[in-house]
Amino acid sequence: MPEFTPVLALHGGAGTMSRARMTPEREAAYRAGLNAALAAGRAVLAAGGAALDAVTASVMALEDDPLFNAGRGAVLTSAGTQEMDAALMDGRDRRAGAVAGIFGPRNPILAARAVMERTEHVMLAGNGANAFCREIGLEIMPVDYFLTPARQEALARELERRASGAADDGDAARKHGTVGAVALDRHGHLAAATSTGGMTAKLPGRVGDSPVIGAGTFADDATCAVSATGHGEYFIRYAVGHEIDARMRWAGQDLATASSGIIAELAPLGGSGGLVAVDRTGAIALPFNSEGMYRAWVGADGVPHTAIF
Amino acid sequence: MPEFTPVLALHGGAGTMSRARMTPEREAAYRAGLNAALAAGRAVLAAGGAALDAVTASVMALEDDPLFNAGRGAVLTSAGTQEMDAALMDGRDRRAGAVAGIFGPRNPILAARAVMERTEHVMLAGNGANAFCREIGLEIMPVDYFLTPARQEALARELERRASGAADDGDAARKHGTVGAVALDRHGHLAAATSTGGMTAKLPGRVGDSPVIGAGTFADDATCAVSATGHGEYFIRYAVGHEIDARMRWAGQDLATASSGIIAELAPLGGSGGLVAVDRTGAIALPFNSEGMYRAWVGADGVPHTAIF
Repeated sequence: MPEFTPVLALHGGAGTMSRARMTPEREAAYRAGLNAALAAGRAVLAAGGAALDAVTASVMALEDDPLFNAGRGAVLTSAGTQEMDAALMDGRDRRAGAVAGIFGPRNPILAARAVMERTEHVMLAGNGANAFCREIGLEIMPVDYFLTPARQEALARELERRASGAADDGDAARKHGTVGAVALDRHGHLAAATSTGGMTAKLPGRVGDSPVIGAGTFADDATCAVSATGHGEYFIRYAVGHEIDARMRWAGQDLATASSGIIAELAPLGGSGGLVAVDRTGAIALPFNSEGMYRAWVGADGVPHTAIF
Repeated sequence: MPEFTPVLALHGGAGTMSRARMTPEREAAYRAGLNAALAAGRAVLAAGGAALDAVTASVMALEDDPLFNAGRGAVLTSAGTQEMDAALMDGRDRRAGAVAGIFGPRNPILAARAVMERTEHVMLAGNGANAFCREIGLEIMPVDYFLTPARQEALARELERRASGAADDGDAARKHGTVGAVALDRHGHLAAATSTGGMTAKLPGRVGDSPVIGAGTFADDATCAVSATGHGEYFIRYAVGHEIDARMRWAGQDLATASSGIIAELAPLGGSGGLVAVDRTGAIALPFNSEGMYRAWVGADGVPHTAIF
């Protein structure tokens, strides 16, 4: 069996990012967070670990960093609560796990993984999902661990905007931030993981594309692993993750063509966002139709990269 | 603009149906329920109505019939509660709406439709979804409307079986019943709708394939409309609805080849079930890999049919 050179790519959300508001300090903080998450996944892959473990490690690091909209630092619903979604998928056998609308577990991606590994189900939501997380003993954190002043201010601004009837500022990054990772491991297996707090001021109960297998999260060793970020409703309707798989499988497209194709097609519909993807050969694609996407990757050459715009 | 001959197909669940236990009276009751649902959708199409309205009407009729596992007569979770999922999709523009884990609305399919028509979201789940349904004034029914002795007995039997360690009887129909409808209207538009109580003794919070756009429910005028029923976890992992679209779109397969292909491929994996599908030419496909599927359809010849085995 041939050995593969491990590859890892991750994102911390996509959207309109004001270069004016991006101070050097703020940019350095984002890059440090991306680098830490890349290092966490790389350590797993370098030790010969599974792609599934690498993407789990990278996403946990991003969930723990309050700068990113997942786990600690998740955005607030219109009711001022936090509701988190996460999913992961193993390209070996398409096993998958997802949670939607949970609050409590420090790392929602571990909740998704427990659904995959410890139940006969793929997806758990709401109260039932929360009860499951407590029952199996996942690490639970209090409200003040998750809540940050920046997210409270963002909700206040958004509710004020709505009350005043002012136009949406179109800052999709603020509204649709997500984190995710995809990897190819030494054994040629692919995996994808995604985690999010959703959209600022979303209706309580809203489920985005992140926990929807085939939309924001998808992996199959035969084709690709995909984790998306963006205006989730469009990513669900266009089944973006599975659409890339389909174009590779049925139309013979390569990863770059398939992934940049669907991202370009979403733009005129209003489906702003992007994704990170890897294929079985170790090719990486990082397409986005927004001004920027927080991203980091390490390809077959072993050189780590981070980028925002 | 050419007129199309309307076409409608629906299902009331698939699985291992014991012919021995199917008395003539019971079979007559199922066929009457299927016929009533077919008539409800046909009336809409005959009057020149939209495919979306036709599938909504057919699914409402099946939800109101306690024989089928959706709305009244939904199966019970392991906690003895009822949690319903529903979704619909409009082939004209891929607009979609879905609810997961709701209880209260008489017709969950109307809740899914309201998500599509009255929010900026595609999917709402749990408490937030229930609150939304009450806020917009959907008809809410009490527990004793939904609960039937047959479902209480089914839960008791399943919990006894688990406690005794006896082997699963493999009755996927009992566990995975779902209702759904697909239609082509006079204007050439497609739509799909699906509604379910899920699996008997499922974990509270479990979300199946029915409300997952691209899995149990999918529609695009360019290809097909699909509503699935079966072991939902497999239908999610294989993105069954969107996979049929992809095989038609990217591999040039016809509806029958694409839909029977994926259903046949799921069988050896353990993914028992079936689906109803229509394409833009009015072709109907009703593949299933289980012993039977409650189904009814009316093609371009206008002759209504019902079938079980």
